[in-house]
Amino acid sequence: MVMKVYGTVLSSATMRVFAALYEKDLEFTFVPVNLRAGEHKEEHFLALNPFGQVPAFEDGDLKLFESRAITQYIARVCADKGTPLVCEGKPMATVGVWMEAEAHQFEPLAWKLRRELVYNPKFGMAVDAAVVEESEAKLAKVLDVYEARLSQSKYLGGDCFTLADLHHLPAIATLMGTPVKKLFDAHPKVSAWAASISARPAWAKVLAMRNQQ
Amino acid sequence: MVMKVYGTVLSSATMRVFAALYEKDLEFTFVPVNLRAGEHKEEHFLALNPFGQVPAFEDGDLKLFESRAITQYIARVCADKGTPLVCEGKPMATVGVWMEAEAHQFEPLAWKLRRELVYNPKFGMAVDAAVVEESEAKLAKVLDVYEARLSQSKYLGGDCFTLADLHHLPAIATLMGTPVKKLFDAHPKVSAWAASISARPAWAKVLAMRNQQ
Ligand SMILES: N[C@@H](CCC(=O)N[C@@H](CS)C(=O)NCC(=O)O)C(=O)O
Ligand SMILES: N[C@@H](CCC(=O)N[C@@H](CS)C(=O)NCC(=O)O)C(=O)O
Repeated sequence: MVMKVYGTVLSSATMRVFAALYEKDLEFTFVPVNLRAGEHKEEHFLALNPFGQVPAFEDGDLKLFESRAITQYIARVCADKGTPLVCEGKPMATVGVWMEAEAHQFEPLAWKLRRELVYNPKFGMAVDAAVVEESEAKLAKVLDVYEARLSQSKYLGGDCFTLADLHHLPAIATLMGTPVKKLFDAHPKVSAWAASISARPAWAKVLAMRNQQ
Repeated sequence: MVMKVYGTVLSSATMRVFAALYEKDLEFTFVPVNLRAGEHKEEHFLALNPFGQVPAFEDGDLKLFESRAITQYIARVCADKGTPLVCEGKPMATVGVWMEAEAHQFEPLAWKLRRELVYNPKFGMAVDAAVVEESEAKLAKVLDVYEARLSQSKYLGGDCFTLADLHHLPAIATLMGTPVKKLFDAHPKVSAWAASISARPAWAKVLAMRNQQ
């Protein structure tokens, strides 16, 4: 039974799941969900994710949602295939720390900046300069911490590429096309890391899917 | 070597870690960090958590931060002691989904409501009624999803109490002392679940620590 991903190639949370599947070299079925038509709030989709957000995921009769729960499932169930992505014991505890840092330190700021600098202009809404300034200042501090971490280890979680790095990919791809790129440029280790994880063949496949749209 | 928790009994993220330690029946050393004096921004603390937040954690030479990474470490390293808190394979994938729901659906709203209804009044700051109203409306919808889930299974992650439930405890304890209680009251399964997890002996020990302060 091949795994199924419900979502859209324009959704960063969905792209996170695609990245994990490509790193694991897994075949999967992609079921597009039309957010503009509100399909994610229809009953058949709410049965897959009651919060009405993409992505949703099926592996046989197992139904999952929340992108980071899905990537962790993929990483564990196919531990021996493709890129490891997770490990065990104390090294995994450190990977866990940096997965949490992505979720609680990086993503909330990255999300605000994407809303202000990408989505608001796209949908003709006003950009709140104060929010941009405050979020950029906070993100710069988070990147200071990343810079120090990446001076000690090649990847956030340790010597190997893991989900802690992978979870950042969609936000980095979007922010690099905005003035926020300057914050990355000001952090050489972070820039090198962002470039190296963005150059992974699995991520290129995700971007190719998006560009085919 | 006994585990060490750096934090304060008034911090919800620190309480989450205490709850996991008590569920596992583990001895630990609590090292109070004086947030009012800004101790969490001093160099010796930043060496434990570079983001300058409590809690931080040590187990021998392993240093961790981010409360949910710490609870997961505790649950895995002491898998055979006390309450299981995590499991393996497909059931764990579902626990993972609900841990992510806590982090991404529940906590951001619970955090806004605590700030407006508890911290702002305490520190003489204005309460933003529009933020309260919007967050309450969104939290009510999240609790609708929880209500449906808890009609199918005793706990969020499945038949057993796990980290997916435990991670909610500090926010529930605070919100129950605010008008947000009415949203819980309107969801009978959620109310029964909140009451049952709040009555756990491990959680009573955390509250006792706080009340001794
Ligand atoms: N925490 C969720 C976030 C999912 C999410 O925000 N999905 C967006 C697209 S990237 C969505 O479905 N938005 C439509 C909506 O929320 O109504 C995850 O990681 O899966
Ligand atoms: N995501 C972090 C949040 C930690 C957090 O917000 N800690 C608060 C106390 S509950 C803190 O240290 N606040 C002071 C600050 O951020 O400067 C975790 O779960 O550990």
